[in-house]
Amino acid sequence: MIKPGIPKGTRDFGPVVVRKRNYIFQTIRETFEVFGFQPLETPAMENLSTLTGKYGEEGDKLMFKVLNNGDIYNEAQQAIDNKELVSAITEKALRYDLTIPFARYVVMNQNELALPFKRYQMQPVWRADRPQRGRYREFYQCDADVVGSNSLLNEVELLLIYDTVLTKLGLQGYELRINNRKILFGLAEVIGKQELLTDITISIDKLDKIGAEGVRKELQERGLTDADITTIEKFLAIEGTSDEKLAKLTDLLQSSPTALKGIEELSFVINSGYGNFTTTPIIDVTLARGLNYYTGLIVEVKAPATVKMGSIGGGGRYDDLTGLFGLPGISGVGISFGVDRIYDVLEELQLFPQTAQQSTRVLFLNLGEASARAAFSYMMQLRGKGIAAELFHENAKMDKQMKYADKRSIPYVIILGESELQENLVSVKNLTNGKQEKIPAGELLSYVF
Amino acid sequence: MIKPGIPKGTRDFGPVVVRKRNYIFQTIRETFEVFGFQPLETPAMENLSTLTGKYGEEGDKLMFKVLNNGDIYNEAQQAIDNKELVSAITEKALRYDLTIPFARYVVMNQNELALPFKRYQMQPVWRADRPQRGRYREFYQCDADVVGSNSLLNEVELLLIYDTVLTKLGLQGYELRINNRKILFGLAEVIGKQELLTDITISIDKLDKIGAEGVRKELQERGLTDADITTIEKFLAIEGTSDEKLAKLTDLLQSSPTALKGIEELSFVINSGYGNFTTTPIIDVTLARGLNYYTGLIVEVKAPATVKMGSIGGGGRYDDLTGLFGLPGISGVGISFGVDRIYDVLEELQLFPQTAQQSTRVLFLNLGEASARAAFSYMMQLRGKGIAAELFHENAKMDKQMKYADKRSIPYVIILGESELQENLVSVKNLTNGKQEKIPAGELLSYVF
Repeated sequence: MIKPGIPKGTRDFGPVVVRKRNYIFQTIRETFEVFGFQPLETPAMENLSTLTGKYGEEGDKLMFKVLNNGDIYNEAQQAIDNKELVSAITEKALRYDLTIPFARYVVMNQNELALPFKRYQMQPVWRADRPQRGRYREFYQCDADVVGSNSLLNEVELLLIYDTVLTKLGLQGYELRINNRKILFGLAEVIGKQELLTDITISIDKLDKIGAEGVRKELQERGLTDADITTIEKFLAIEGTSDEKLAKLTDLLQSSPTALKGIEELSFVINSGYGNFTTTPIIDVTLARGLNYYTGLIVEVKAPATVKMGSIGGGGRYDDLTGLFGLPGISGVGISFGVDRIYDVLEELQLFPQTAQQSTRVLFLNLGEASARAAFSYMMQLRGKGIAAELFHENAKMDKQMKYADKRSIPYVIILGESELQENLVSVKNLTNGKQEKIPAGELLSYVF
Repeated sequence: MIKPGIPKGTRDFGPVVVRKRNYIFQTIRETFEVFGFQPLETPAMENLSTLTGKYGEEGDKLMFKVLNNGDIYNEAQQAIDNKELVSAITEKALRYDLTIPFARYVVMNQNELALPFKRYQMQPVWRADRPQRGRYREFYQCDADVVGSNSLLNEVELLLIYDTVLTKLGLQGYELRINNRKILFGLAEVIGKQELLTDITISIDKLDKIGAEGVRKELQERGLTDADITTIEKFLAIEGTSDEKLAKLTDLLQSSPTALKGIEELSFVINSGYGNFTTTPIIDVTLARGLNYYTGLIVEVKAPATVKMGSIGGGGRYDDLTGLFGLPGISGVGISFGVDRIYDVLEELQLFPQTAQQSTRVLFLNLGEASARAAFSYMMQLRGKGIAAELFHENAKMDKQMKYADKRSIPYVIILGESELQENLVSVKNLTNGKQEKIPAGELLSYVF
């Protein structure tokens, strides 16, 4: 007999963890809903033709491919290398993210959808990354995107969603960092090296990790002159209030119309007065998020500095995502919540409310048939009122039953012994403080458990 | 460009369908919770060593296997047939049901779990069945099981869960059919042909489909004598009230102690008086559910006869499920809801409540900056009260904005034109009945949308 296990990088979620995770999902879902976003669910498997090439070479490697059913032996024989072999015996893979399936859905349903289409999606994705602390091979993504609208009101709304959700979760000290891809493009334009845009952004994105000296060295290696680097360093040195940052950016990048457009967009998001933020977004000119497909806003949410967790969410505006599937010219903007990390943050800061950990409230002890019969009837009435209740499954020793209540963290035990039954009373024992009281049976249903 | 599609037998669930499905899931989940069941979630992928051989040869064939990552070309070369090839290049498969992962979880966590362990699980499973109406390759199972208790109270509670959920969903005319495997075993025992138990149950299970004559023919082919068949036909002819059926069964099967035990168990479930059923369970002696692993109660829920849907749920008691993973002697009993079929039934009988179809309640028209700015502020206040609200994303023609409300089935539109802004009023238009009224802006938050 093999000792049972689960695949590397995957997890079982037991009751306590599922409840806490559901509390996070539910908070996010409610917020998406009141903001007018609509739920979408797509299949776990997508055709390889949908996924291949959409996440770079790395993505194609890390995708979990599903073996074709039936006999594959003959197909396999023809293949002369690994690539041919894999393509001969697979045609589906597990979802790698939620964005490509969303784009695929929009294209397939373009005639029915009311645009702008605001959708949210909360489903697992699978990646064959090397598992490590905080990185799993199966994990949930929670995304909200708007397609079919260029309005910057969407940017404001999505930032307000972050603000609303994180405030509801009781988080304080997190940061909503924002930038605009057009500003980064403008920087490359001002230097006169648009072709090095990716190199520049990759380097300055690392400022936190490798420091100013490290960035300078990298930029040199990537072929930028000292004059270029001086401009970039001026850019990176921009500080102050949001308005000061915007003014300095305008000053430095005024020869780039694209940069000016990006500055105007950032200014709208910060200053339009539409959003009433609990936590005001911070302009971070180094923010690039590595992703080449962003074309406007870039946003990243940083966990409170005290918990050293880094990013707990991010997103941005992208143009033409659905163009991959033959529907060009549709702009989109979206955000994503990193639920696993948010879970760890709430755990570390002890922010999960009692209600998120609540399971059965009441255990009726089983003290023989007459007691069990009366208990069963009361139990069903409590359940009818939405109170989770159980009757111990057998007439076991009191001690054993109390241990069950303890192990399950059930806060109330109800005893219907002979005397209680005779006097039409019930004994309620509060296991949290050890107090026990006898109350008239008629009051049980209005008792506050 | 390839026209995008999704794998055969899978589905996208758009907003309207997700909401209705969530209504079913939520109703089931709430009931599981008040009955003291605890949530569990297991990974989509399991090791092949966990799954292989647990669902028969058919199951091994229909499992979706996941290709190992990395280079598999060399491993593939060694294989001399399909079986060797598959086992050389795969080690994981997608979950085929929720029961085996549950058993695996119980064994892995046996030292921490409080027994009896009452768990529920609502997750998708994948099977490479030939897709057809009502049969998909990805579908949800919703299971509740109790392990570690022989008490028949569990049987009563699980039947009450069916009763509670289906009543909450507004279903009428469904049937809770129950039987006991021990009675079927007893029948084979009375005939003296225990070795033909499976043949007998498979045949009588088909009574509905092939009729009495068909069953007789099958039984003959399976090697039963005329005398055997006469006994079986007496068994199948048992009719009357539950008590009459129990009496006739006792009469016919009194020489089998196992049958008498089964009859006693059925009698407890029906007559103990613990359960106060809205829909009383019906004894159906032909019910076998094909599954050899049941050892006690067998239950099947039949949709109301008017909708011709057949089974919408089922379950039973099984012994020693965890024995497969090295933990013998633990009894279990469980039930399952067929959510896809329940969905179709509710749809056909128009039982989905309005609230299960509710999306955005209020659309604020975008009539230029001053209007939009005021609207945004009201909108955020409505959202704060839990009312889903949107502001149209741009200052488009009124007609276009109204079309969006219509297409999205948003019931209320709010107009903040120049005159409204001046007079501090808002115009509320009810799109359901076409009525429009002007109310003081201060009353907007207490308006019933």
